[in-house]
Amino acid sequence: MVKALVFDVFGTVVDWRSSIARAAQALLEPQGINIDWAQFADRWREGYFPAMRPVWNGERPYVILDVLHREILDAMLGGFGLEALGDAERATLTQAWHALDPWPDSVAGLTRLKAQFVIAPLSNGHVAMMVAMAKRAGLPWDLILGAEIAGSYKPDPRVYDSAPRLLGLAPAGVMMVAAHPQDLAAAAKRGLKTAYVHRPLEYGAAAAKDRPAAGSFDVMVDSFEELAEKLGV
Amino acid sequence: MVKALVFDVFGTVVDWRSSIARAAQALLEPQGINIDWAQFADRWREGYFPAMRPVWNGERPYVILDVLHREILDAMLGGFGLEALGDAERATLTQAWHALDPWPDSVAGLTRLKAQFVIAPLSNGHVAMMVAMAKRAGLPWDLILGAEIAGSYKPDPRVYDSAPRLLGLAPAGVMMVAAHPQDLAAAAKRGLKTAYVHRPLEYGAAAAKDRPAAGSFDVMVDSFEELAEKLGV
Repeated sequence: MVKALVFDVFGTVVDWRSSIARAAQALLEPQGINIDWAQFADRWREGYFPAMRPVWNGERPYVILDVLHREILDAMLGGFGLEALGDAERATLTQAWHALDPWPDSVAGLTRLKAQFVIAPLSNGHVAMMVAMAKRAGLPWDLILGAEIAGSYKPDPRVYDSAPRLLGLAPAGVMMVAAHPQDLAAAAKRGLKTAYVHRPLEYGAAAAKDRPAAGSFDVMVDSFEELAEKLGV
Repeated sequence: MVKALVFDVFGTVVDWRSSIARAAQALLEPQGINIDWAQFADRWREGYFPAMRPVWNGERPYVILDVLHREILDAMLGGFGLEALGDAERATLTQAWHALDPWPDSVAGLTRLKAQFVIAPLSNGHVAMMVAMAKRAGLPWDLILGAEIAGSYKPDPRVYDSAPRLLGLAPAGVMMVAAHPQDLAAAAKRGLKTAYVHRPLEYGAAAAKDRPAAGSFDVMVDSFEELAEKLGV
């Protein structure tokens, strides 16, 4: 029945928070800057939904996520006393979103799933970002799907619809895999199957996420390895 | 300088002629049909450029290649005395274009090139076709680019332009790899680098192709393995 698995990436496949905190610290601490690096990553991520909303509402043409990331960064640096940060550092920080580390089970789980399913990211990250991330981390995607290919951002229905359309499958032939209930709910509305992966540490140990009620999604697992088991791979 | 290699597929990566001839024979010979199978493949392929022209001319909206393949097949069957062939057989034959065999050096050469470059098909085949072909043959693409993503067919400039745009690269950061001088010439007009791969048997031993004059393209090789060597992989 399900022939393809499409994956949310930020938080589901990769640990954006630790990766961005580490990248910011590696760049800025040698310059004598000392801030709460995890909080820096959290603030940046908090700007994410507000920045995308005008695009999925149709108030702004689609731009790649690098553009939004840079706008959010520019707006938040003052809050950390970093308004004087130069253009080169801002560009390097924005580029750090292309080099996020996977969760420990991601590569092994995807490799296993790939033997039986078509696997692709269906992320709000753009194509170049997804390719760079995959090459660096060894994520074995069959192809890259997502926001840029669809010309909008999730949860715009066009992004979910683009996956079965481009794969030549019925919506129920595609399963959305994500750590975020709202992403899965939006996918389910378009007829996709849903797999919830619990990533309790996405926002750090102090902000551990609750698990949705049992039965909320077609499959509910704690790792990609467990997803492979439940799907009979 | 060159960061990504994008590949023509039919004739460059896969041997469409032998594959289609074999698939047609396997399906129809047991039904008592006996025709020249290679000629059957050649006739089908001859309909390819005329069928695409209205799309790249803007006279017809983009449709996936399966649609054109089926139209060409329906129009040519009479010439083989096969006008009575049923819908199921026609669908099976059309689907055979998703299951083409690679040239002997393709998988090993691409695997080697992938270690240093982003590799993607930039084919007139659509996404589902490219994914099916890759999964079956083991073509290790990083992502799928091409006609469907760009919304037109080569040699429409939009198809060539889509590769550097989606990869976040300058045109000269992308090299088009093809066995067809006209494909490479169209890519060069859009600023892409070019690699010619000689595939003399594309149209069979009786119609061996001439080699373009030395210096016609940035690189000229006889296999993907040689391409890897020339690019220093």
